[in-house]
Amino acid sequence: MAGYISEAVIKRLPAYYRHLKELEKEGVLQISSQELGQRMRLTASQIRQDINSFGGIGRQGYGYSVAGLREHIGRTLGVDRQHHLIIIGAGNIGRAVALSDSFAKNNFVTDAVFDDDPQKIGVCIGEMQVQDVRLAKRYIQEHPVDIAVLAVPVDGAQRLVEELFACGVRGFWNFAPVDLKLPDGACAVNVHLDEGLEVLSYRMLNHQP
Amino acid sequence: MAGYISEAVIKRLPAYYRHLKELEKEGVLQISSQELGQRMRLTASQIRQDINSFGGIGRQGYGYSVAGLREHIGRTLGVDRQHHLIIIGAGNIGRAVALSDSFAKNNFVTDAVFDDDPQKIGVCIGEMQVQDVRLAKRYIQEHPVDIAVLAVPVDGAQRLVEELFACGVRGFWNFAPVDLKLPDGACAVNVHLDEGLEVLSYRMLNHQP
Repeated sequence: MAGYISEAVIKRLPAYYRHLKELEKEGVLQISSQELGQRMRLTASQIRQDINSFGGIGRQGYGYSVAGLREHIGRTLGVDRQHHLIIIGAGNIGRAVALSDSFAKNNFVTDAVFDDDPQKIGVCIGEMQVQDVRLAKRYIQEHPVDIAVLAVPVDGAQRLVEELFACGVRGFWNFAPVDLKLPDGACAVNVHLDEGLEVLSYRMLNHQP
Repeated sequence: MAGYISEAVIKRLPAYYRHLKELEKEGVLQISSQELGQRMRLTASQIRQDINSFGGIGRQGYGYSVAGLREHIGRTLGVDRQHHLIIIGAGNIGRAVALSDSFAKNNFVTDAVFDDDPQKIGVCIGEMQVQDVRLAKRYIQEHPVDIAVLAVPVDGAQRLVEELFACGVRGFWNFAPVDLKLPDGACAVNVHLDEGLEVLSYRMLNHQP
C-alpha cells in the first residue's frame, strides 16, 4: 500500500507509534487528524499527508482506528517481530542498554554482552555474564543476532562492523562517535550523544527552543 | 559574520567540529573543501556552502585553517565555554551519563545527581553522591546550573521541566520518551533511544543503509 516514504516521515514514524500506543492504553478507539495533530504538535494536514504516505487508511468523518493504525505502523517499522541484540562493550553505555527493560518491552531483546577487557569479562550485568569478545563470532554462528550495539571507543568500531557483518550481523546501533563506513547490505543508526549536547549548547546560545 | 543557519547545518556542526578536532590531532594545518568532503562524505560544494553559511572563511588555493575553523565552530556552538550539568534520575541512563568522561572533556561537566528513590539517595556514582531531588531547587539557587539531564520515567519529565525552569535552568537534555512542552525561553534536545532502534528496524526491513 505504501509507496516511497521520505526520510523525514520515517523519523516521525516512531513518534506516531508511541502516541498511538499511549492512546490505546487510554482506551481511545478512533482519532481524527486534528486531535492526533494537537497531540503530536503537527498540523492536521501534515498528519493526513504523513499517514497517507505510509499507507494508513482513515475514514471520512470517523478518523483513524487507533489500533489499526498502530498495527500498521508497527508492521511498517518491523517492530511487530522480535529483534535479537548483542552488545559489544560493557562500559557505562553498554551496561545502560543491557539493563534497560524498555528495549525488551519493545521487542528488542538483548541476549549477550561482550568485551575485550579481562576485568569486565565474567562480570554479571543483570542476568547476563560479560563474555570475551573473541567468542562473539562463534556466538553469532550458533544464535540469531539481528543487531549489534556498538558501545566501544572510536578506534574499535569500524573493524567491529566489518567483522560482525562478515559473521552475518546486518544491523548496527552505534554509540561510538565515528562515521562508520558500512558494507553493502549493512544498516546503522548512530547515537552521537556528545553531538546532541553540542546542539543543545547552540540552541541555548541562540535562544532557540 | 554568520547569518541564518539552517537546522540541517546546525545538526552537522558537531560533526564538523569532531572531524576538525581529529585533523588537529593528526597535525593537519590546512584542509581543502574536497579533502574535508571526502572525510565527511559530503560534496566539496556542500562543504563550502555549509561553512559559508556559518561564517567560516577559507582562502582560494589554501583551503581552510583547521585550527581557525575548529575555533570558529566551537564559538558558534558555544562549546568554547564550560556548561554545568545536573542529572535528575540515577537509573541506568543517569548513571551512564554521570560516569562518562567524554562529556566533561567536551566542556559539559556534571556536578550533581538527584533522585527521588530513597534506595538510590546517598549511593555514590563516581565521586558524586546521589542527592534527594527535593534538594535540587536549593542546589540550583546556590550553584551555576546550565543544563538538566532528564533521565527519569515519562510521568515525571514534564513537571520537572516546569519546576527546574522556574528555578532558572534553561537547557534540558531529555532521555524520557515524551514530547516536552517547553516554557518560553527553555531549550531542549531529546534523545529518544527507543525511536532510534525502531528506525534501525525499518531500515533493515527495507534494505536501506
